[in-house]
Amino acid sequence: MRDFGSDLSAVALNTATLGHNMASAGAGWSPERTIDACAARGFGGIVFWRREIGDRAVQIGARARAAGVAVAGLCRAPFLVGPLAPPGRAAVMDEFRAAIDMAAALEAPVLTIVTGGVEPGTKGVTESLRLVADRVAEAAPYAAARDVWLALEPLNPVYGGDRSCLTTLRDALDLCDTIAAPNVGVAVDVYHVWWDTDLSRQLVRAGARILGLHLCDWLAETRDVLLDRGMMGEGVADIRAIRSATEAAGYAGPCEVEIFSAENWWKRDPADVLDVMVERVRTVC
Amino acid sequence: MRDFGSDLSAVALNTATLGHNMASAGAGWSPERTIDACAARGFGGIVFWRREIGDRAVQIGARARAAGVAVAGLCRAPFLVGPLAPPGRAAVMDEFRAAIDMAAALEAPVLTIVTGGVEPGTKGVTESLRLVADRVAEAAPYAAARDVWLALEPLNPVYGGDRSCLTTLRDALDLCDTIAAPNVGVAVDVYHVWWDTDLSRQLVRAGARILGLHLCDWLAETRDVLLDRGMMGEGVADIRAIRSATEAAGYAGPCEVEIFSAENWWKRDPADVLDVMVERVRTVC
Repeated sequence: MRDFGSDLSAVALNTATLGHNMASAGAGWSPERTIDACAARGFGGIVFWRREIGDRAVQIGARARAAGVAVAGLCRAPFLVGPLAPPGRAAVMDEFRAAIDMAAALEAPVLTIVTGGVEPGTKGVTESLRLVADRVAEAAPYAAARDVWLALEPLNPVYGGDRSCLTTLRDALDLCDTIAAPNVGVAVDVYHVWWDTDLSRQLVRAGARILGLHLCDWLAETRDVLLDRGMMGEGVADIRAIRSATEAAGYAGPCEVEIFSAENWWKRDPADVLDVMVERVRTVC
Repeated sequence: MRDFGSDLSAVALNTATLGHNMASAGAGWSPERTIDACAARGFGGIVFWRREIGDRAVQIGARARAAGVAVAGLCRAPFLVGPLAPPGRAAVMDEFRAAIDMAAALEAPVLTIVTGGVEPGTKGVTESLRLVADRVAEAAPYAAARDVWLALEPLNPVYGGDRSCLTTLRDALDLCDTIAAPNVGVAVDVYHVWWDTDLSRQLVRAGARILGLHLCDWLAETRDVLLDRGMMGEGVADIRAIRSATEAAGYAGPCEVEIFSAENWWKRDPADVLDVMVERVRTVC
């Protein structure tokens, strides 16, 4: 397992950790200020959300690289299915391609996909997963032509209804097998998979298809399942075991810290949050 | 699959559906009034919670049978591990035995077990599941001597931290294999397993070890993961497919309707709730 004691070049900040830091959220830091704060701490990467980028993708990507920070990924494709997806297949695919274009303009190698929930008018996840496979398969060559990898991220089953019919790494790999595109893989997020006793086996199966590892913690008493994630060390996830198994499976990419925490971490000074993040990455991950 | 069109003898009410109906909750119906309301609708069973029974277990059990309603089960054993368990192993086992005694006094064949979450001081679910296996194995002969079956109920992973380190039917059956007691099996609850693409396979594996099937629905937009369950037909679970697979695996026991719904169903007149339950059992289950 890689040693984060002195070298944080494999660590990336997902800007969600700072409340997205747009004019209307977080501390309102610009992408440039956030990039510099990452560079100052030795992080090798940063992951933005589309809403933070607007029409400045090329500029922000170049600015990050100039500061020595890679844009490690972009969050995220639109929901592809379910009640929160854009209305209709054509609208979904238009927004999907726009997200791929933004990732390419940022020179971000990975676009994360959160699938969306159960397609209205259907029951269970089977038909929704079939639609996801179909839509990702259609987008994959478009992404490949722009050097963008697509990472299917399974979410905790609590989101199964509205945000992600894809709930386990097993199902994500089954989707990859179905899609069979060379640039489609998976993202592993501690928050979503920490409970899964099948995880180690599936990580081995995933191997080179692991395109991302997201660090945070699951609080034993979670007050809000969307915006009450813990900083690493605060919760019950065995983060070190998950990172160890992921790296043993061959993953050598960035470890991305992503903490949605409306009532705690987002209320703190972003510089302090980044400092705590450094300490926790070193001591409990 | 059994036909619920005219014969509801395989249907059971879990009294949680009526807000537990104690003096301080629900409409305040007595156990006797709830029993009679079930009998009037042709339900073959009722499942109580310990808090509703107090020291009247023998009396209430006899009253139910006299009305033609079986006490199909009792909810539930104490949390065996995790932050909400009684303090210390001795206290856990004392309360566990008391719950078994109450099930026996009711002549309820099944005591449901919700395991509890991650044991304080540990990370991940491995050690907690080991403790659960140890404690259930110790209690199993005590229960067998009183003709009580123990049903391990996996809960949705959203409860993994505090309420249930046991999150999948696969893990529940692995626990059964470890415990290897003839009176230990599993309970399958639509709310907790609807998202699991491995369910059909595990139901076949479970076979005669399926001791309960709980019906409700998962609302696509769930506002509160503890107390915002849907009535069958309101949500995205494929209830009919789950019941069909469960019965195909050999299950012939009660189908227990269990709906925690503080802001909707618990605010309605219990008689109306029971009438809707009848209609939904007939049409969407």
